[in-house]
Amino acid sequence: MIIYVKKNTDQKQLDTLINWLESRGVEVHALSNGKSIILGLIGDTQNVDADLVNNLDCVSRVVKVKEPYKSSNRKFHPDDTVIDVCGVKIGGGNFTAIAGPCSVESTEQICAVAKAVKESGASILRGGAFKPRTSPYSFQGLRSKGIELLLEAKRLTGMPIVSEIMDIGSLPVFEHVDIIQVGARNMQNFELLKELGRTNKVILLKRGLANTLNEFLMSAEYIMSSGNQNVILCERGIRTFETATRNTLDISAIPLLKKMSHLPVIADPSHASGIASLVRPLALAAVSAGADGIMVEVHNDPEHALCDGPQSIRPDEFSSLMQDMLKVRNILYPQK
Amino acid sequence: MIIYVKKNTDQKQLDTLINWLESRGVEVHALSNGKSIILGLIGDTQNVDADLVNNLDCVSRVVKVKEPYKSSNRKFHPDDTVIDVCGVKIGGGNFTAIAGPCSVESTEQICAVAKAVKESGASILRGGAFKPRTSPYSFQGLRSKGIELLLEAKRLTGMPIVSEIMDIGSLPVFEHVDIIQVGARNMQNFELLKELGRTNKVILLKRGLANTLNEFLMSAEYIMSSGNQNVILCERGIRTFETATRNTLDISAIPLLKKMSHLPVIADPSHASGIASLVRPLALAAVSAGADGIMVEVHNDPEHALCDGPQSIRPDEFSSLMQDMLKVRNILYPQK
Amino acid sequence: MIIYVKKNTDQKQLDTLINWLESRGVEVHALSNGKSIILGLIGDTQNVDADLVNNLDCVSRVVKVKEPYKSSNRKFHPDDTVIDVCGVKIGGGNFTAIAGPCSVESTEQICAVAKAVKESGASILRGGAFKPRTSPYSFQGLRSKGIELLLEAKRLTGMPIVSEIMDIGSLPVFEHVDIIQVGARNMQNFELLKELGRTNKVILLKRGLANTLNEFLMSAEYIMSSGNQNVILCERGIRTFETATRNTLDISAIPLLKKMSHLPVIADPSHASGIASLVRPLALAAVSAGADGIMVEVHNDPEHALCDGPQSIRPDEFSSLMQDMLKVRNILYPQK
Amino acid sequence: MIIYVKKNTDQKQLDTLINWLESRGVEVHALSNGKSIILGLIGDTQNVDADLVNNLDCVSRVVKVKEPYKSSNRKFHPDDTVIDVCGVKIGGGNFTAIAGPCSVESTEQICAVAKAVKESGASILRGGAFKPRTSPYSFQGLRSKGIELLLEAKRLTGMPIVSEIMDIGSLPVFEHVDIIQVGARNMQNFELLKELGRTNKVILLKRGLANTLNEFLMSAEYIMSSGNQNVILCERGIRTFETATRNTLDISAIPLLKKMSHLPVIADPSHASGIASLVRPLALAAVSAGADGIMVEVHNDPEHALCDGPQSIRPDEFSSLMQDMLKVRNILYPQK
Repeated sequence: MIIYVKKNTDQKQLDTLINWLESRGVEVHALSNGKSIILGLIGDTQNVDADLVNNLDCVSRVVKVKEPYKSSNRKFHPDDTVIDVCGVKIGGGNFTAIAGPCSVESTEQICAVAKAVKESGASILRGGAFKPRTSPYSFQGLRSKGIELLLEAKRLTGMPIVSEIMDIGSLPVFEHVDIIQVGARNMQNFELLKELGRTNKVILLKRGLANTLNEFLMSAEYIMSSGNQNVILCERGIRTFETATRNTLDISAIPLLKKMSHLPVIADPSHASGIASLVRPLALAAVSAGADGIMVEVHNDPEHALCDGPQSIRPDEFSSLMQDMLKVRNILYPQK
Repeated sequence: MIIYVKKNTDQKQLDTLINWLESRGVEVHALSNGKSIILGLIGDTQNVDADLVNNLDCVSRVVKVKEPYKSSNRKFHPDDTVIDVCGVKIGGGNFTAIAGPCSVESTEQICAVAKAVKESGASILRGGAFKPRTSPYSFQGLRSKGIELLLEAKRLTGMPIVSEIMDIGSLPVFEHVDIIQVGARNMQNFELLKELGRTNKVILLKRGLANTLNEFLMSAEYIMSSGNQNVILCERGIRTFETATRNTLDISAIPLLKKMSHLPVIADPSHASGIASLVRPLALAAVSAGADGIMVEVHNDPEHALCDGPQSIRPDEFSSLMQDMLKVRNILYPQK
Repeated sequence: MIIYVKKNTDQKQLDTLINWLESRGVEVHALSNGKSIILGLIGDTQNVDADLVNNLDCVSRVVKVKEPYKSSNRKFHPDDTVIDVCGVKIGGGNFTAIAGPCSVESTEQICAVAKAVKESGASILRGGAFKPRTSPYSFQGLRSKGIELLLEAKRLTGMPIVSEIMDIGSLPVFEHVDIIQVGARNMQNFELLKELGRTNKVILLKRGLANTLNEFLMSAEYIMSSGNQNVILCERGIRTFETATRNTLDISAIPLLKKMSHLPVIADPSHASGIASLVRPLALAAVSAGADGIMVEVHNDPEHALCDGPQSIRPDEFSSLMQDMLKVRNILYPQK
Repeated sequence: MIIYVKKNTDQKQLDTLINWLESRGVEVHALSNGKSIILGLIGDTQNVDADLVNNLDCVSRVVKVKEPYKSSNRKFHPDDTVIDVCGVKIGGGNFTAIAGPCSVESTEQICAVAKAVKESGASILRGGAFKPRTSPYSFQGLRSKGIELLLEAKRLTGMPIVSEIMDIGSLPVFEHVDIIQVGARNMQNFELLKELGRTNKVILLKRGLANTLNEFLMSAEYIMSSGNQNVILCERGIRTFETATRNTLDISAIPLLKKMSHLPVIADPSHASGIASLVRPLALAAVSAGADGIMVEVHNDPEHALCDGPQSIRPDEFSSLMQDMLKVRNILYPQK
């Protein structure tokens, strides 16, 4: 339920209303959109009589929210959420490129790629340290050591970094990581989501391979309802019958998520397709469909990458893509 | 198998080679790309000894084609196929917009929409006369009468028209229809495909809801191997677990099909999503991903459409979309 | 809408009611289940006032039917439909095995298989003459000649035969075929369904690879609303992300279809899996789930079959399977 | 790679061979099947020269294993694995029924259901304490308290218990739980799998909603390669386009998994369908397809269940199902 309180309502009256609502067992999120004060009610609202509230002098309107997602719902928060990571802004009309190798392999590799993608316009560095691999016999990432190398690249280039977490236990290792990624396979690892909700880190949440948009937002809700509102949604392909690509990028998810939620929405064309030559057209498609950013795998030597080489593009390809993405962005979504 | 014959080979020598190949039980398609004469062999090539052919003086190279699709394979025909419909060019760097209502309803409706979309830059008019509906109790289209009304709109505006055929029996009714559409549900109606392969009509073939790209090209192959090379491929969404959209637009299909085949590839964002507000972002995404054109449902009065109103956009929305598609197209795929 | 008319209502009163209903623009199907006369209303019932009807003396109850499928709906026809093909009964507690090769190849082959499967307990012979193949370069079946050979096997063994039709044009060839099969790829070839609805043949309708149960019944509805009530439903696997089997047998479809509809429901484990060793466990699973019968590919020489050899079982395997299916059937669904 | 060592090889020779193999960087698992000693090599075998090994006197055969799953591969371990839980045997020709409520709700509830299902023939009690719910606002289970109540029911009835774990942190709470379940959403929570691989608990691993059989066995491999060989595989439905059921039970998975792996395979018809009336036909289908057991939700008062009431059957329904499952099992898979 959303209660629109008249703009000129005095604080005391507002506090009384909020206290009463909380006494009915719901949590109240208050924000203002300039025109009115918006009270978002989260939890079981069956003890809140909507008609009674609607009749209060200070209330202009009461809206029932049918969607099971609340905190992430655009109805609760009509304006875009803008997330600030060390000065880099995500969402709210900004366009953000995240780039870097699938796996961190060595100081040389991560620093070389970091410098290259920074020069080409990327603003955040990605790099896998803890790698979720289908096989226990595959390279599992450099783990803690990988995080250290990422931090080194951060010191060198000044770029904020994002890396994937695989379990709660390794949270201390991520102390200086700017954005913590939750991978597709962990999208419904609810205990992990709740724990991340208790941190103040920015969380990049990837959509699960077989999860609907509703379920995706419910997973964001796990993080947000635990206290952390800094969630970035990432479409990275779903599993379908088609085998020509590793997964099927659900391009419709981008405009739909933007409509359903106020959270920033980015796309990952590298994991969605698994094919380097598709990264460019899919990235451009995502920009055109309204994505707030893109996350791309870039490797200085894809042929010898320890992981996911076939889907990585080279720094020069990224540079050319970056320029074209910005041109398209400027035409379709010019910054106000 | 593809045989590259040296450019300066004399006609007699070439004929001898072709006759010999045909005597081995294969069909030979010859074309020239300026640099060499390309012989595409279709059928069972097990009686053609590749080494023997490769050693002929006039042959520069022999390539075995693993893909089951031959005529539609880009390896057989490296240049883009350009299809000309009453002067409107499709493929080969051209961008073509097809627009019109889901169903033809009346002279007034189809003529009004035709004029509106023509003014906004559409070059081909679409309109359903024979409608494949899930329920026998739903409106089945105006059928022959609908085709007549489409022809009236063609006379009025000069636009070529496209309409869907549902069975071989109604082929005579399509005598003056410029492009015959085969719908998703009939993509593997092989008898229909073979019959259309015996006509000289342009065929717009839609991908089936559960068909892979390989199967899609094999259906094009049914038409082409029967003699008709004028096939346009249309991605219109596949069936997945996601229920937020009617189908899932497989945006990756566009660059992949362009790579696999020389045929023009267009996208239908209206049927892919079933949601009017998604038509714009999906159409722009398709353009960015390299589509040669777009097919969009436009209705002058979507609220009262007899069919698929919720996915139709209005003429003014189409006009604005058209302008933005052309801007994006000019940046990413500038005409040479 | 369904109207339950009291058992002792006189004919004149009933006729008056039916005439009035028809004058409101609906079609009325009358049948009796011993306890009452059931009137099933098909078409647009908005001009039939349910309250008014309910208040008539002769009416005991009025039920609104939400499902879009009417003729095939069990609510319209509570008892199982039993279809009689040359004395072989399908549905209504009977268990029917249909067996035979994927493709008819020669007189010797079809007659040998026919005799073998008849001895093992199959009551209907299957054999493909017109073959829907993904590739135009694959064996397309013996076509009319194949139907002739099937008829020869029928004369020899006395077994009724079933074969697939691919287009309306070949209907005359099926004059003496007992059951006409509509394949998965043609499940929504609506013109074909309507035409078959105008014949008095038994139709074996296979579920499409990407079609829901609702859509499946709507396709049955196309046949039934055209006049032909003799429809057998066949679950043959749907397309999913899993590649270990050709398709995924949707075993739940069997009990669900039995609940939704009164039509006989059979399963085809051969096409569902594409793997001979899975035919036995899947056939037994289908029997346990309540299937009225099974359709199995049996070949006397699977290694040299012209089509689908890898999914065919040998006559001795079929014989052993048949015995076990009957044992399980007798335990779980003993004949009354 | 698998090395079959001749039966009469002396221990010293065997040790020398094993030491040499380990020095090449692979892990060696030795077991005997009566006829020979089987050495299963896990890890990177590129430094092991197969021809050289094959030529050793003591070696009868060397088989290369292409599948990425090793420990779980039937080729490594031809006989069925039999798991013993407090005297209850799972796999190897035994049939095991696991039953109980979706969620543990109270002492009265869990003890009542436990007694009822034990009387009807279930040998293991299931009950959810930590509940993975799509929404953070839904009932999350009694958590530790739920495990205590389960242990109380175990003391009362003597039945071993199974309950789902959601993260590594709660492992101490599961100290006295006999079988730890990993849910579908955590099938690729690799850190959890590795940690469970270091325990000596029996692990019931459920297939993920969008995971192939290969990926399923690779997840078992995570547990087994960490040291714990006690893994039970559970098919519980995959996500497809069909919405008539919550998920689609992949019945083919049962015979396929039995062929690919030596681990016990059970089915969960309750979660697969989400519909109580389908539990019976799907359970019987799974038995017929060769499942080693079944896991069913049984609730004494489904209408008032805190979770998943609509898919729970009542104790009397379970009792009748149990009898029929045993009858079918005895016919199709008689105990030797």
